[in-house]
Amino acid sequence: MAVTYELVKTCKQTGARAGIIHTPNGSFETPMFMPVGTLATVKAMSPEELKEIGAGIILSNTYHLFLRPGHDIVKEAGGLHKFMNWDQAILTDSGGFQVFSLSNLRKIKEEGVEFRSHLNGEKLFLSPEKATEIQNALGADIIMAFDECPPYPADYEYVKDSLERTTRWAKRCLDAHRNTDKQALFGIVQGGMYKDLRIESAKQLVDLDFPGYAIGGLSVGEEADIMYEVLEYTTPELPKDKARYLMGVGAPENLVEGVIRGIDMFDCVLPTRIARNGTVFTSKGKLVIRNAQYARDFQPIDSDCACYVCRNYTRAYIRHLIKCNEIFGMRLTTYHNLYYLINMMKQVRQAILEDRLGDFQKHFYAIRQ
Amino acid sequence: MAVTYELVKTCKQTGARAGIIHTPNGSFETPMFMPVGTLATVKAMSPEELKEIGAGIILSNTYHLFLRPGHDIVKEAGGLHKFMNWDQAILTDSGGFQVFSLSNLRKIKEEGVEFRSHLNGEKLFLSPEKATEIQNALGADIIMAFDECPPYPADYEYVKDSLERTTRWAKRCLDAHRNTDKQALFGIVQGGMYKDLRIESAKQLVDLDFPGYAIGGLSVGEEADIMYEVLEYTTPELPKDKARYLMGVGAPENLVEGVIRGIDMFDCVLPTRIARNGTVFTSKGKLVIRNAQYARDFQPIDSDCACYVCRNYTRAYIRHLIKCNEIFGMRLTTYHNLYYLINMMKQVRQAILEDRLGDFQKHFYAIRQ
Ligand SMILES: [Zn+2]
Ligand SMILES: [Zn+2]
Repeated sequence: MAVTYELVKTCKQTGARAGIIHTPNGSFETPMFMPVGTLATVKAMSPEELKEIGAGIILSNTYHLFLRPGHDIVKEAGGLHKFMNWDQAILTDSGGFQVFSLSNLRKIKEEGVEFRSHLNGEKLFLSPEKATEIQNALGADIIMAFDECPPYPADYEYVKDSLERTTRWAKRCLDAHRNTDKQALFGIVQGGMYKDLRIESAKQLVDLDFPGYAIGGLSVGEEADIMYEVLEYTTPELPKDKARYLMGVGAPENLVEGVIRGIDMFDCVLPTRIARNGTVFTSKGKLVIRNAQYARDFQPIDSDCACYVCRNYTRAYIRHLIKCNEIFGMRLTTYHNLYYLINMMKQVRQAILEDRLGDFQKHFYAIRQ
Repeated sequence: MAVTYELVKTCKQTGARAGIIHTPNGSFETPMFMPVGTLATVKAMSPEELKEIGAGIILSNTYHLFLRPGHDIVKEAGGLHKFMNWDQAILTDSGGFQVFSLSNLRKIKEEGVEFRSHLNGEKLFLSPEKATEIQNALGADIIMAFDECPPYPADYEYVKDSLERTTRWAKRCLDAHRNTDKQALFGIVQGGMYKDLRIESAKQLVDLDFPGYAIGGLSVGEEADIMYEVLEYTTPELPKDKARYLMGVGAPENLVEGVIRGIDMFDCVLPTRIARNGTVFTSKGKLVIRNAQYARDFQPIDSDCACYVCRNYTRAYIRHLIKCNEIFGMRLTTYHNLYYLINMMKQVRQAILEDRLGDFQKHFYAIRQ
């Protein structure tokens, strides 16, 4: 198998897992937050900086790379790792989520999805086979099955039909996958916010024996409590010896709660997107560094953070840069936000190893304002 | 004196100078190209990257910092070096050029210049005293006299009046300068494209005994040959034991020709500005990396370049990033362009030390397409 999950420790306080995921491009410790590199670059960051902050794996988007520069060019370059100068693990999503969230005029058929590019309106088609072919060309270590992510809210019948189609599509992805020795194809559990449908979806996918599983269709507008509840009844259905990935979740509190509910991997554009707009994470909560109150604040973003940014730059300087739309300002806020999440996950892992993630969780909330 | 020029070698083939400029924040070898950090950041670059490419000094803009964040905030931060985390030399211009090129509705009086901010139309005033006060607050190692940069073309009488006012203003800057032990105030030679006026301006300023001299009012739209001619009759008027700085010039061929005509320091936004638009320097001339012909070009920007970018990234990848407006694309092109110029200046210096800058110049043009 291209990718394996090694369970290191289960926290006695919470049941959370610490593990190691082994891939053809290196191993990384879990739980892990994966920075998103939509277009073969984690916006504003260099590969060296990503390594510096401890990102062992990054995510890239099939939909976006399919449109620009095209998977043929990436393949010709020697694959995504070589194209973007990243020699550690990469995960590509299947394009499913973007087709449903970004593109226009999509038409869902059993065969696949017809849609128009959000860039130029060009008519395009993605199917389980096509999404897998593209991901085989890109060459990421972990690739994802082509799924439908139903909207929220959606009625029971729609979600039921959708998850069953997602299972049929998942099977077609397995059949189409041409590079099983170097790329692991993960299945995606859907089922909306319906307990029986989530369990049904999980069972169907587990029967197909994927090397890892994602939980999709969450963080789509529902309350956090609903998401946590879905995780509580979904993760127990997933095999203990495989990685579990919660898609599109990146708020610090959601990561802590996700790990406690058995998740190993997360990704989200949120930390990098809000960074470019001048919002940064701190141990005391979010801070909008654009605000006038920081104009003469010569403290670091977060006095408890040991990152390059917090060791060298003040809120006043970063505010100035962000107000002036300076690239270096976005570099600094992005670097800090990613460091914050990845470092937080390291602390979460340590707490798991020491059977005290429950205590960590209490402290985490206690110091937030 | 805060800043001194040490002459190391004069090239027997060309008369060009190799030297060392000593400042309170370190020494740097000349000739040198200074990257421009308009708003207390060299756009897209980190201080560490600037050191990596060998920039011993950077330039920042008084006019821009006066508007944002305000020199009072920079002073409160402990000065510009500390504010922007740069512990090597800094030069600030006087704001004169920006008042004349960027701002609206300016009114020139003997006392100073009334103008409106290009950002919000606010009515502002800069004078020799105010520009010096701001620069004293910023704390750069080299600060510049407040001058008028006449437009091109401009008639003889206008330029004559203007240069004489610039001399009177230069004297007022000297009188206003409060920090002579840590900041060196350079005078700026004006005089348009008129030989006698340039010589007159140089003589007047040399009489005032500045610790260094700039040549302003060039690269304002005139042909390169005219600029070279002005340099040929202006630099001989300047003292041999002081630094000579040609303002606003950054095209590779202009740097080579400027050094041959006795210049030690250059600055220009051109290399960083064109980089962000996807134009890069190579030893064979400029290359517009956005162009479709580079979509599948897996060579580095310049095979003769040893920089981080050329060692790790292909034209195809950089083109993709620039086409997608990715920040990392601008980082890579900016890094390369600055490296190219600073490395070229190192080669120029080596040629001076070995009395072969004339040969270097021939080869430089021979390999350009
Ligand atoms: Zn930090
Ligand atoms: Zn290069």
